[in-house]
Amino acid sequence: MDPDAAARAFLEHYYRTFDTNRAALGGLYQDNSILSFEGAKMQGTAAISEKLTGLPFQQCQHNLSTIDCQPSGPASGVLVFVSCSLQLSGKQQALKFSQMFHLIPTV
Amino acid sequence: MDPDAAARAFLEHYYRTFDTNRAALGGLYQDNSILSFEGAKMQGTAAISEKLTGLPFQQCQHNLSTIDCQPSGPASGVLVFVSCSLQLSGKQQALKFSQMFHLIPTV
Repeated sequence: MDPDAAARAFLEHYYRTFDTNRAALGGLYQDNSILSFEGAKMQGTAAISEKLTGLPFQQCQHNLSTIDCQPSGPASGVLVFVSCSLQLSGKQQALKFSQMFHLIPTV
Repeated sequence: MDPDAAARAFLEHYYRTFDTNRAALGGLYQDNSILSFEGAKMQGTAAISEKLTGLPFQQCQHNLSTIDCQPSGPASGVLVFVSCSLQLSGKQQALKFSQMFHLIPTV
């Protein structure tokens, strides 16, 4: 699977999990993973999961707009840059945001 | 210098160079650097410099809004995520965009 296809498959899985079973997102991180979120940093599965499940909204739907990815340098891995809109239940206007992932093989 | 301060210093230098002497931006990339830009990929100093100097505007000013950075995993390096506004000469409305950098030591 080429990096672009792998990145797209990961993103679809990530945001589908976010929208349907947010508590399971922690399983997509490792204990040395770091989530930077609007100026705050969380490290590790538990802290990242707590941050994501504690966000102040429940029902939501992510719609991907653009995906850019490229190899991440000396370590094998992929950098993924996403622009996305987030539709919250009961809100008319979707929130636009961008996010990046650094995907690193664990085996 | 801590990673946050180093990232901020790099960004200030990068966007000041962009706004005052865009042709010099190529010197901030290596021959194995990749620039992903709205779906296109350019590799190497020359191709990246050509893309950046060929953007369809001349006078511009970048104003940084937010900076998030974190270590980049097994290889020493820093991931930097920026949100920024770009004011073009003669345009009333600034363009908002986000960008990421993967800073990797070369020595």
